[in-house]
Amino acid sequence: MMKHVIGAVCIKCGAEHEANDHTYTCTKCGGILDIQYDYTYIKSQLNREKLISRNDDSMWRYRELLPIEEGSRLTPLRVGWSPLYRAEKLGEWLGLRNLYIKDDGLNPTGSLKDRASAIAVVRAHHAGMRTVACSSTGNAASSLAGNAAAMGLESFIFVPERAPKGKVAQLMIFGAHVISVKGTYEDTFRLSAEAIEKWGWYNRNAAINPYLSEGKKTVSLEIAEQLDFKAPDYVAVSVGDGCTIAGVWKGFKDLYALGFIDTLPRLISVQAEGCCPINRAIETNRPLERMEENTLADSIAVGVPRNGEKALRAIRESQGITVVVSDDEILAAMRLLGATSGVFGEPAGVTGTAGVKKAAEQGLIPEDAVVVSLVTGNGLKDVVSAQRIAGEPRYVSPDMGIADTAF
Amino acid sequence: MMKHVIGAVCIKCGAEHEANDHTYTCTKCGGILDIQYDYTYIKSQLNREKLISRNDDSMWRYRELLPIEEGSRLTPLRVGWSPLYRAEKLGEWLGLRNLYIKDDGLNPTGSLKDRASAIAVVRAHHAGMRTVACSSTGNAASSLAGNAAAMGLESFIFVPERAPKGKVAQLMIFGAHVISVKGTYEDTFRLSAEAIEKWGWYNRNAAINPYLSEGKKTVSLEIAEQLDFKAPDYVAVSVGDGCTIAGVWKGFKDLYALGFIDTLPRLISVQAEGCCPINRAIETNRPLERMEENTLADSIAVGVPRNGEKALRAIRESQGITVVVSDDEILAAMRLLGATSGVFGEPAGVTGTAGVKKAAEQGLIPEDAVVVSLVTGNGLKDVVSAQRIAGEPRYVSPDMGIADTAF
Repeated sequence: MMKHVIGAVCIKCGAEHEANDHTYTCTKCGGILDIQYDYTYIKSQLNREKLISRNDDSMWRYRELLPIEEGSRLTPLRVGWSPLYRAEKLGEWLGLRNLYIKDDGLNPTGSLKDRASAIAVVRAHHAGMRTVACSSTGNAASSLAGNAAAMGLESFIFVPERAPKGKVAQLMIFGAHVISVKGTYEDTFRLSAEAIEKWGWYNRNAAINPYLSEGKKTVSLEIAEQLDFKAPDYVAVSVGDGCTIAGVWKGFKDLYALGFIDTLPRLISVQAEGCCPINRAIETNRPLERMEENTLADSIAVGVPRNGEKALRAIRESQGITVVVSDDEILAAMRLLGATSGVFGEPAGVTGTAGVKKAAEQGLIPEDAVVVSLVTGNGLKDVVSAQRIAGEPRYVSPDMGIADTAF
Repeated sequence: MMKHVIGAVCIKCGAEHEANDHTYTCTKCGGILDIQYDYTYIKSQLNREKLISRNDDSMWRYRELLPIEEGSRLTPLRVGWSPLYRAEKLGEWLGLRNLYIKDDGLNPTGSLKDRASAIAVVRAHHAGMRTVACSSTGNAASSLAGNAAAMGLESFIFVPERAPKGKVAQLMIFGAHVISVKGTYEDTFRLSAEAIEKWGWYNRNAAINPYLSEGKKTVSLEIAEQLDFKAPDYVAVSVGDGCTIAGVWKGFKDLYALGFIDTLPRLISVQAEGCCPINRAIETNRPLERMEENTLADSIAVGVPRNGEKALRAIRESQGITVVVSDDEILAAMRLLGATSGVFGEPAGVTGTAGVKKAAEQGLIPEDAVVVSLVTGNGLKDVVSAQRIAGEPRYVSPDMGIADTAF
C-alpha cells in the first residue's frame, strides 16, 4: 500500500502502469518506467519544518517521498545524509565562489549506489522475498551485498570472470553468493536475468528496476536541505548508465513540485571522453549510439547505457551542460580534490569534479553560481588509480642529518 | 584560552602542568600527560538536553568537552557521529541479546584516527602553525593528511620504506609531503622527531601528544548519547598503542563526572596473540614488556606501546576483561561481521569483535548485557586480508543452462 504513489509511467510511450514489483518495463513498448507521486497528498503529510526537525540522519528521513510500502522494515545501515562540504580552497583554484562537494563515498559500502540498494532490499523484504540478485562488478554489487546482509537477506551476485579479486572478496565478506561467469559482461548480465527469472529472486539490475533511481534521488533531497532549501544553480554528476543523473534530477523536481524549493538547478553531465554516449547524443541531438568503453573510470564505463533515455530527458529538461574529460583530467581532479578538500574519490567518483574544473575554465559557469560537485565513490575502492597520479615520496637515509636537510 | 581545562597531569608522578602545545610530557619524570577538566564549569555550560537538540552531526557537537581554544576554527571534514547499529543477527550468533556495532570505519579517511587528527589540526591552526607532522604507515598518517588538507595546512608524513605503496598513494593524493625513510620504524620515528624539533612543526605523534586521546574519547560520548545516555555494560576495543582504549575510557569518565550517565562500562581489551604486551601486563600484573609484532592486524601491531600506561590504568579502573585472539579468529570475525551486519572492517578494526565472540563463548559476558563492539577501521583499507578469508566464487560457463543449475 503506497498512498503517495500514483503509478509508473513509461518514459517512451507514456503508458500508465501500476507501481509494483512485477512490472519493471512498459508492457506496451518495453520502455523504462518512472514512478509518479501524488504531490498533493505528500504535501498534506510533510513540510520543510517537519523535515528539519527530524533526527534521522539517513536517507529514510525522506520516507514520504520514497516508493516504499507502509509498514516496511527499513534497512539498518546508515545510508545517505552524507556531508556537503563548502569547498573554499578548491573554489579559489577554479574561480568559483560558492562551490560545494557532496561526499557520497562515505556511504556504508563506499558509494552512492547504497541509496539504490537500500530501496531494493526494503522492497524485497516487504514483498516477503528472501533473496536479491544483480549482475555487476562494482559498486552496485557491493552495495547490494552489504545492504542485503544488514537486512538478513541472501544475495546472489553475477560477475564476469575478469572482475578484480579484491572486489569479489568484499562481496564474499558480506556473505554474498558470487557467481563468476567465464565470459563477457553481456554473458553475465544475460545469465543473471535468466537465473532471476527462474528462481524468482528480487531483481536489482538498475537496467530495468525503476525504484533504484528513486533511492538515488535522495542525494538531491539532502543537497537542497543542507543548503537550507535553496536549490544550487548547478549540480555536476559523473555519468555512466544514466540512472544516477536521472535520480539527481528527479529529487530536485520532487522538491520543486512540493514547493520546498523555488528554482531548479542546471545539470552538468560529465563523461569520460573514452566512453560518452549520453553526452554525444545531447551534443549531436541524435539518438544514443553504442560506444567503446575506454576509460579507467570503470564505474562509469558504460557503452550501452540502459537508463540513457531517462538521463537524456533529465539533462535536456534542466538545460544542462555536457562536459567530456580525459583520463588524465580525471586523475588530476582526484589529486586536486584530495589536496584542497581532504576528500578521496575513486576515478568515476571525481569525474564530476573534473568536469566542473573544465567547465569553469571554459567560462561556462558564472563565478558567483552555487555549484555542487557530487563525489559518487570512495577512493579506497581503487587505490591502483591513485598510485598512477600520486607521484613518488622523497627517499631519505636514516643517518641523514635532519639539521642539514631542506624541506 | 580554555576556561574548561584545568591543566595536564602526569599519569606517572602526578605533577601538574599547564595545558599547552609546548609541554607534551612531564618535565619532572618524562611520563605522559592527561588533560584535566573543570567539570563544574562544563556543567554550567552544557546539559543532556542541549546536546540532544544540536544539529551538528560531527564530533564537534561535544566541543565543550574538548581541549580546543575559544574561537578555534574547526576542521570542516565530518569526523565522528558514526552510526551505532543494533547487531541483532550477530548477537543471535554470539548469544548476546543487546549487542551493538559502532562503525568508525565510516569516518572521512576511513578510521577512528580521524578523531585524533581533527583535534591536532584544529590546535595547530589556532596556534598559527602552518605545518603538521607525524610518523606512521597507516591510519594516523592518512587521517592527518586528509584533515590537514581540509584545514589548509601542510603535512609531512614520515614512513618506513616498507610502507605499502597504496597507503603512500593515499597520503600523496591528500597533498602530504611523504618522506620515505630507508630504515626501520624506529629510524623513521626518530627522524620525524628530529625534523619536528628542528622545523617547529605541530607534532601529531600519538606517542606523546596528550590531546589526541581527547579526540578519540568522542567515540564514547557518541555511544552514550546514541544509547540515550545510558552507558553500555561492556565496550570491546582493539588495542595496539593503547591511545584508543585510553580515550574510550576517558569519554565515559567525563560523562560520569558530569552526571550525564549513571554507570561506567567494563572495557574489553582485545589484542592479537602475536602482539599483546598490554594484555600480558594486565594478566601477569607485571610491568609492560616489549613483544614481537606478529599479526596481520597491522594497525594494532605495536610491540612497545607508547600509551601503554594510560591503557593499563583504563583497563584496571574499569575492571576490564582482556582477550587475545589469533589472526585466524580475526579474519573469521571480519567475515562474520560482514555477513551478519553489512559492516566491512579491516583486521585491526574487527579485532574487538573477535574478542567479543571469544569472551561470549567463554561465558565472560552475561547474555543480557549491553555490549558495544567498536570497529575502528574500514575494510577497504586492506582488501588483501579480506581475500585471505573470502573464499572462492562459484565459476560457471556462460552457456550453462540456468534451468539445470542448482543454487
